[in-house]
Amino acid sequence: MAQFERILITGAAGRLGTELRQGLKHLANHIRISDRVAMEDVQPHEEAIVCELGDYEAVMELTRDVDAIVHFGGAPLEVDFETMLDSNIRGSYHIYEGARKNGVKRVIYASSVHAIGYHGMEDHIDADSPVRPDSLYGVSKNFVESLSRLYWDKFGIESLCLRIFSSFPEPADRRMLWSWLSFSDCVQYVERALTCPRLGHTIGHGISDNRLKVVDDSKAGHIGFHPQDNTEAFRAAMETKTDVPDPNAPGVKFIGGWFCELGHPDDEAK
Amino acid sequence: MAQFERILITGAAGRLGTELRQGLKHLANHIRISDRVAMEDVQPHEEAIVCELGDYEAVMELTRDVDAIVHFGGAPLEVDFETMLDSNIRGSYHIYEGARKNGVKRVIYASSVHAIGYHGMEDHIDADSPVRPDSLYGVSKNFVESLSRLYWDKFGIESLCLRIFSSFPEPADRRMLWSWLSFSDCVQYVERALTCPRLGHTIGHGISDNRLKVVDDSKAGHIGFHPQDNTEAFRAAMETKTDVPDPNAPGVKFIGGWFCELGHPDDEAK
Amino acid sequence: MAQFERILITGAAGRLGTELRQGLKHLANHIRISDRVAMEDVQPHEEAIVCELGDYEAVMELTRDVDAIVHFGGAPLEVDFETMLDSNIRGSYHIYEGARKNGVKRVIYASSVHAIGYHGMEDHIDADSPVRPDSLYGVSKNFVESLSRLYWDKFGIESLCLRIFSSFPEPADRRMLWSWLSFSDCVQYVERALTCPRLGHTIGHGISDNRLKVVDDSKAGHIGFHPQDNTEAFRAAMETKTDVPDPNAPGVKFIGGWFCELGHPDDEAK
Amino acid sequence: MAQFERILITGAAGRLGTELRQGLKHLANHIRISDRVAMEDVQPHEEAIVCELGDYEAVMELTRDVDAIVHFGGAPLEVDFETMLDSNIRGSYHIYEGARKNGVKRVIYASSVHAIGYHGMEDHIDADSPVRPDSLYGVSKNFVESLSRLYWDKFGIESLCLRIFSSFPEPADRRMLWSWLSFSDCVQYVERALTCPRLGHTIGHGISDNRLKVVDDSKAGHIGFHPQDNTEAFRAAMETKTDVPDPNAPGVKFIGGWFCELGHPDDEAK
Amino acid sequence: MAQFERILITGAAGRLGTELRQGLKHLANHIRISDRVAMEDVQPHEEAIVCELGDYEAVMELTRDVDAIVHFGGAPLEVDFETMLDSNIRGSYHIYEGARKNGVKRVIYASSVHAIGYHGMEDHIDADSPVRPDSLYGVSKNFVESLSRLYWDKFGIESLCLRIFSSFPEPADRRMLWSWLSFSDCVQYVERALTCPRLGHTIGHGISDNRLKVVDDSKAGHIGFHPQDNTEAFRAAMETKTDVPDPNAPGVKFIGGWFCELGHPDDEAK
Amino acid sequence: MAQFERILITGAAGRLGTELRQGLKHLANHIRISDRVAMEDVQPHEEAIVCELGDYEAVMELTRDVDAIVHFGGAPLEVDFETMLDSNIRGSYHIYEGARKNGVKRVIYASSVHAIGYHGMEDHIDADSPVRPDSLYGVSKNFVESLSRLYWDKFGIESLCLRIFSSFPEPADRRMLWSWLSFSDCVQYVERALTCPRLGHTIGHGISDNRLKVVDDSKAGHIGFHPQDNTEAFRAAMETKTDVPDPNAPGVKFIGGWFCELGHPDDEAK
Repeated sequence: MAQFERILITGAAGRLGTELRQGLKHLANHIRISDRVAMEDVQPHEEAIVCELGDYEAVMELTRDVDAIVHFGGAPLEVDFETMLDSNIRGSYHIYEGARKNGVKRVIYASSVHAIGYHGMEDHIDADSPVRPDSLYGVSKNFVESLSRLYWDKFGIESLCLRIFSSFPEPADRRMLWSWLSFSDCVQYVERALTCPRLGHTIGHGISDNRLKVVDDSKAGHIGFHPQDNTEAFRAAMETKTDVPDPNAPGVKFIGGWFCELGHPDDEAK
Repeated sequence: MAQFERILITGAAGRLGTELRQGLKHLANHIRISDRVAMEDVQPHEEAIVCELGDYEAVMELTRDVDAIVHFGGAPLEVDFETMLDSNIRGSYHIYEGARKNGVKRVIYASSVHAIGYHGMEDHIDADSPVRPDSLYGVSKNFVESLSRLYWDKFGIESLCLRIFSSFPEPADRRMLWSWLSFSDCVQYVERALTCPRLGHTIGHGISDNRLKVVDDSKAGHIGFHPQDNTEAFRAAMETKTDVPDPNAPGVKFIGGWFCELGHPDDEAK
Repeated sequence: MAQFERILITGAAGRLGTELRQGLKHLANHIRISDRVAMEDVQPHEEAIVCELGDYEAVMELTRDVDAIVHFGGAPLEVDFETMLDSNIRGSYHIYEGARKNGVKRVIYASSVHAIGYHGMEDHIDADSPVRPDSLYGVSKNFVESLSRLYWDKFGIESLCLRIFSSFPEPADRRMLWSWLSFSDCVQYVERALTCPRLGHTIGHGISDNRLKVVDDSKAGHIGFHPQDNTEAFRAAMETKTDVPDPNAPGVKFIGGWFCELGHPDDEAK
Repeated sequence: MAQFERILITGAAGRLGTELRQGLKHLANHIRISDRVAMEDVQPHEEAIVCELGDYEAVMELTRDVDAIVHFGGAPLEVDFETMLDSNIRGSYHIYEGARKNGVKRVIYASSVHAIGYHGMEDHIDADSPVRPDSLYGVSKNFVESLSRLYWDKFGIESLCLRIFSSFPEPADRRMLWSWLSFSDCVQYVERALTCPRLGHTIGHGISDNRLKVVDDSKAGHIGFHPQDNTEAFRAAMETKTDVPDPNAPGVKFIGGWFCELGHPDDEAK
Repeated sequence: MAQFERILITGAAGRLGTELRQGLKHLANHIRISDRVAMEDVQPHEEAIVCELGDYEAVMELTRDVDAIVHFGGAPLEVDFETMLDSNIRGSYHIYEGARKNGVKRVIYASSVHAIGYHGMEDHIDADSPVRPDSLYGVSKNFVESLSRLYWDKFGIESLCLRIFSSFPEPADRRMLWSWLSFSDCVQYVERALTCPRLGHTIGHGISDNRLKVVDDSKAGHIGFHPQDNTEAFRAAMETKTDVPDPNAPGVKFIGGWFCELGHPDDEAK
Repeated sequence: MAQFERILITGAAGRLGTELRQGLKHLANHIRISDRVAMEDVQPHEEAIVCELGDYEAVMELTRDVDAIVHFGGAPLEVDFETMLDSNIRGSYHIYEGARKNGVKRVIYASSVHAIGYHGMEDHIDADSPVRPDSLYGVSKNFVESLSRLYWDKFGIESLCLRIFSSFPEPADRRMLWSWLSFSDCVQYVERALTCPRLGHTIGHGISDNRLKVVDDSKAGHIGFHPQDNTEAFRAAMETKTDVPDPNAPGVKFIGGWFCELGHPDDEAK
């Protein structure tokens, strides 16, 4: 018997959304899946809804009759400010308003390492360290971390802001040898946060059990995430095909990686 | 001889903006003053520009040929989300973009106690404590605190985010007996931040030298703010005319005061 | 117009109780004063009640119709365990039970430096440092600090546990040059705690504004205590008449002073 | 060859005392076992003594010729104040006095999660966090934690105050899925504390290696406890037969569990 | 293909140097080995150079054409001050000057537990705890820890200062049951520090995965050391043949062990 | 009646030594003054001894029959390594050995901001922050800070390591507006450390009561230093005659000032 009647997943057509559709299906009788584009292979237990998160009325509708929300929608990379404003800031506000108005009690939000990207490799920060965004994208993540805190303190909606480091099928560069989060571990983190007895408002850091330990996630210990994967199987190949990194390059020095080497999106676009 | 050729003050028609026009005039040969409404009594050394901060081109123009920006513009209270988005979030982004594109090196931003309003009276937080917004207004302040951090780490623009507690002509309720910031002390904080040798990115807490000491501002000690005023002269009158507070009322328990007792602006408006 | 209708002072015949009777009288229309021995010079606004704090029924009666309690009663020095158990442990439990049953909302408790006496002069502890009692007397103070915390967390009764260092007419030995709390400053601390907007459960450290600063009382800043006295006027005389101390003597090394040099009361009594 | 000539176990007829009799027997040539009621199945290496801990002379006798004490006696649950005073406060004082007078150098004391029960699930406290008792029972545990600190600082008797979370044959409710301490792990903690090279005065937290990690026990790392059990084998059954908890119920929100939902024992008894 | 063209190992004739010659050989095409005495069994990939580290010109030559330095040379025990000054202080300065002048970017330095030996077993210090040397030897280690920090902050040379606890073929006394670092784990730590993406200036603590956990090495987590060995296989034999330690002996109480019981070398020599 | 029979001041011919001769004379019946060069205006209560601190026998003689040592001798600026080694490292070792062999119980050592010069203006460090030397000079200060700690922990000699910021007749550059220590305040700090009841091993930070507060000296509060001077009287003149600083210049960014802009002394000498 599933714990939830209905979970909503936003960003369900994306890389991680696709994994979550599969990985969370045992938790609910119905999974409502949403994205701005059409989703493929919709299953009988799934309710697929194409929806722009910037559309207030649509999101109010989307969040109706839902027990929990897994909010992975929005721009996944640095984009121009107005796009960020609409999809990540306004869109996430709509999600939280939908939760408030429709009585949803728990939200799992896909925050990012880029919310804290300008902390250094040697800093070993934890969930209470000050924010250090490395991009407009990171600033938008800080916005939702702050917004969700308000919705907890004032409106009693629990949230995990899961700062995902690098969640890809396998490590794609040397940095991912320490920052990689396997799909399986990502799904585990979300599942544990959906089902732990008390979530409150928690900041989590999603990294697999890789050799280098760069952040301290112990303040999320009440969720019970225990990564099962690591990158050692990919190490030799990755070290062979890529150069030894310069330790002073911003992309090595700071945990945000190459986002710290990006300029402003207005300049980059030129 | 003034230290600056030209300082920009936004929100110059507001309560604090009016004080800053007067209090900072010795620092610059020219003070550019800006607001969405017309400003009164424009002096010869002042350049008055009516400007909506949500207008990108206008703000690019507004910030040209400026050495420093005192950004006190935007909605000063809880408002509906779309207004907040436009005036405080988009507007402040435009200010920072103007600073970046026009080579302005230092910004003093009017943040607020409402960025951290859900911390308790007994918590004695400091500048590194996690954010606890008490309103959408507070969330918008957190947004700019995050954004300005990015503009320091990536683009080298120094900022003070001055969390103003209660800056009024005199204390208006019992809470202000501890949270009041006199106009004179407010001006002093801004002036010291404009002229200190290194500002970096600093979070400050603006309170006069009142009897109760509720936050720790020592991490802004490199700015050199030393409040000169306090509320003792107002105490007897205030305690006579108002009831003894309930220590468990949210407006007493949390440092954000009555903002913590507000509902959502959509509900309040009804 | 007094803020309180009736305040209860226990230990009112003692050294500090006598000062409090005088110093707090403007705060209440009636001061109920209590001790195990008769009190002198009872004033019209005072209600004198001789009472053993170990007597449950008597304390239930004593605490009736009271708005706040200033609990300075009990053994003021190291005594044998059974005396300590009865007067300080059972007696203080009765006071808190009286507060709970009679609806008293705020208690000011005379804790002591001896609750933390085995911390060192160089440790610069604050209110959250672990307890380090230096005597059975200090253990009894820790008991009440713990008990009052329970009565706050579970029953909503606010408390100040004021760790009094050395409150005497004037400094009586070299250690008191740093540990002295003038009577006037002691009364101020109690008054501020009775009248501050929110007390919650606070641990305070009562020392005047002496030259050496050995503990950090900033976590009680929401009470607003600002000592006005210091020991400099007594320094020359005290340094002339007493030897330079041995820095490694327990009474110099630890903040509890000569209590750290006491043996067990059973042995001392021999 | 056993390390100790004789160990005393108090509370030896109790649930944990029974386990300790068995689990520690290889450590000593003689195990003296004590309880207020008769103990069963006394073995040749055991010396069974029925003893009220509130009886001073009896405890002086009980603690004679003993190398170490495992003090698990006293009331194991919330009881009325006078019972708590006699069995837990006076009784534990007698144990420490017995240790002092008879030259016993190490005591293992059964403290409890209820000494810190009002800390929250998200607080992730450690051994230096302030006490937060959730009951008179918890206050009595704080008393012994303080008393044992005095006996270390002043009289050189080493102690472990082991805050036992939930030590039962198996988890009995959803909370125990994170708070359970298996009997085997409990015995291991006590054994390691008896035999580690230096115990000093240590606060430990006894929990098995369960999925959720709610407290930080690293400050007891010099003892070398490594839990071997966990609750995963019990999870499915427990989650099936009990409802999903309300995260805001005091028994879920605070680590003390249902003790936080108890009223005062005087009221409960009615 | 080896990552380095040439690594220099100083102290290569010593106990650990011998292990490093073997354990690091796969990392470089050439290993330059150096000691003040002749080294044995020099292999084809090795360049053996007998060199006094106190000889400036010789060290400038020694460090030429080297990619990284593993600096394990110098006096390994307490010696008289002038010997310490020449071999450990002047010698290490020469090594860092050689690195600076010859463009070597990374140094692994054999610091020691004796740099922090006067911290207690219960202190659970980490890399940012203040230094507490237990000997002139320990002071010389602090000197190099400070010097290497300067060479990082000012000259950009990365260093690991690896505080080696007790690295011997097997534990030689009871203390080593917790402080032992197996040769294999020692080699692993050095290798990981040579090859991690960014070392910066890191203080590490070299202990195997022994039962007691006495220091916190998490601030070196970006290096990725994971000890594989422990002392359990040696426990029974060691505990049988040695007495139970006195917990108050300096060599048990402090992590520096018997160095804390040494007098001054001038006195010891007598 | 003076507290001390005889105090030794090293570096007595230097800028600060000259002030100390005058400022401390009331503390002792005899002041022994020492320098490598002749001292002027020797008074009847003074014993002038020309002495190289690198000469072991001479320092043993110098420190005989002395109650306390004020050790301000040695190179006061960046010099080549061998000079630093002899005057600051070997010389200070001789002073501490002299103290040990001759039974001197308290030493006041002139450490320097350059021991921690690479901490930033915004870091607000305190006495327990890790060392960050900005020069070989700073490394030599760290050496003595470590050495004096050993002599406290092992040999019981108390020390103040007073990190002097900028002690000159008046501020000589913009940085000194925050870093200046007046001669009078410097003398006060030394006097208080000589006469406070317990010094232990303390790290102090010597700065006058200037507007900017950049380090936290509260951990030296048991000494009782309260600066009486500040730089406001010099501000206008200094700000007029010098340019506004670049906040990113190392000499502004780091508290060590222009020492952070120095290269290596071998290179500088060219």
